[in-house]
Amino acid sequence: MTTQTIFEQIQLKKSFLCLGLDPDLEKIPAHIISSSEDPIYDFCKSIVDEVQHLCVAVKINTAFFEAYGPKGFASIDRLVRYIKRHYPDLFTIADAKRGDIGNTSLRYAKAFFEAMPFDAITIAPYMGKDSVEPFLTYKDKHAILLALTSNAGAENFQLQTINNEELYKQVLKQSQHWKNASQLMYVVGATKAEHLAEIRKLVPESFLLVPGVGAQGGSLEDVYAHGANENVGLLVNSSRGILYADSGEGYVEAAFEAATMLQEKMKKLLS
Amino acid sequence: MTTQTIFEQIQLKKSFLCLGLDPDLEKIPAHIISSSEDPIYDFCKSIVDEVQHLCVAVKINTAFFEAYGPKGFASIDRLVRYIKRHYPDLFTIADAKRGDIGNTSLRYAKAFFEAMPFDAITIAPYMGKDSVEPFLTYKDKHAILLALTSNAGAENFQLQTINNEELYKQVLKQSQHWKNASQLMYVVGATKAEHLAEIRKLVPESFLLVPGVGAQGGSLEDVYAHGANENVGLLVNSSRGILYADSGEGYVEAAFEAATMLQEKMKKLLS
Repeated sequence: MTTQTIFEQIQLKKSFLCLGLDPDLEKIPAHIISSSEDPIYDFCKSIVDEVQHLCVAVKINTAFFEAYGPKGFASIDRLVRYIKRHYPDLFTIADAKRGDIGNTSLRYAKAFFEAMPFDAITIAPYMGKDSVEPFLTYKDKHAILLALTSNAGAENFQLQTINNEELYKQVLKQSQHWKNASQLMYVVGATKAEHLAEIRKLVPESFLLVPGVGAQGGSLEDVYAHGANENVGLLVNSSRGILYADSGEGYVEAAFEAATMLQEKMKKLLS
Repeated sequence: MTTQTIFEQIQLKKSFLCLGLDPDLEKIPAHIISSSEDPIYDFCKSIVDEVQHLCVAVKINTAFFEAYGPKGFASIDRLVRYIKRHYPDLFTIADAKRGDIGNTSLRYAKAFFEAMPFDAITIAPYMGKDSVEPFLTYKDKHAILLALTSNAGAENFQLQTINNEELYKQVLKQSQHWKNASQLMYVVGATKAEHLAEIRKLVPESFLLVPGVGAQGGSLEDVYAHGANENVGLLVNSSRGILYADSGEGYVEAAFEAATMLQEKMKKLLS
């Protein structure tokens, strides 16, 4: 999917919401666990069906599936195929934080872009250029580089000064010169909204994937004010706030309400 | 598995060899492809059976399995269980380069340490302390942090200067203060043997996982001279040099010979 298509979807749906799927058997409603053979798939599918018209992207957090072993990994594949078949306009992100030497990154690209039909994958940049470029050789597919994350550990390395500026800025700047850099996007935590304006200057054209709005405390208005560009250029993720808005039989209605509240805020910001 | 057990195995087998499993359907002998329902599993199993007594560790490169989708991921699980069942003294490493916010890293730890019986997993350190510590809460399990890798992209960030020293040294130093740091090991590329002596000073007790000997050009003698500590403290990996020593029906014998050559060199260094 091209970034132009994502922009068109944002305009059409008046939303730049990304639905984050982090299924957890300890939080999924009991009636699904007891009646389903693949509860993490059925739970996620029911949420997607309910809110797909309110969001432009879906982010599958691979860890929450892999935690259940091969069966969980199979659910990733089943879920992304379901989404692509039923809602081909949704931008599908594997939040997988992969990245390795070139020859190995190429295999991760095959996994997520060929064996499975994802549009994008999140990548840790620590191993540098040749660990990222294999993901950018696929037409209309995207690598979403970790730049500045919203966790406490961002202080350890990302915010340390390297050549007179923070490491995460080096990641943003250097990566803009890599091959097919127009297919790069960046992860930027919303709890660091004060950094967003600076980030936007360094990567004026790129889409930013912003987790951490809502439960983790970031403000949607701040993110939009500092992070939006001419094509919006933002995908703001919400996971737990939608998935677990209610823990009982009314969970889909509660998810719908939570997603609607976010989409209405976004609609206001976009107008 | 404790590092003491690894050391005892090194003494017993007179080897600090780690067998790297990077199965590639384009390189696996044709007769396996045509006769097996799970050729990447059968290929890896046959190599492990042949060389298990010559090595102390096995490293499964998850990318080469995930490239084949859910079926490939299931082969990881099948393979590590086979190894644990038949060769419980082998130290099993998931070369998976995971790492995310704490809550998500915890799920990757569950995937590799509970759903699957790995002893260790490789981790990218970009997200800092709280992305790594969840892996260290498992008794006798290990997180192997990327420090200095052997690819060209190591220049982009790892070798850049941060607080007057290279980023990879910051990773080594800071991580030594994290909770349960005694369960940390580090990935250090053998092509950077000149850095090994400095690394050994910073992490005197830790095991180092060293890829890049052989095909990628590092010298085993240099690695040992600069990297060994009192408990050896080295796991030197060879993947392609063993797996694809021969592409035909004689591949297991060729793998045996390639592994034997490395083990004999190691035996000499250890004596």
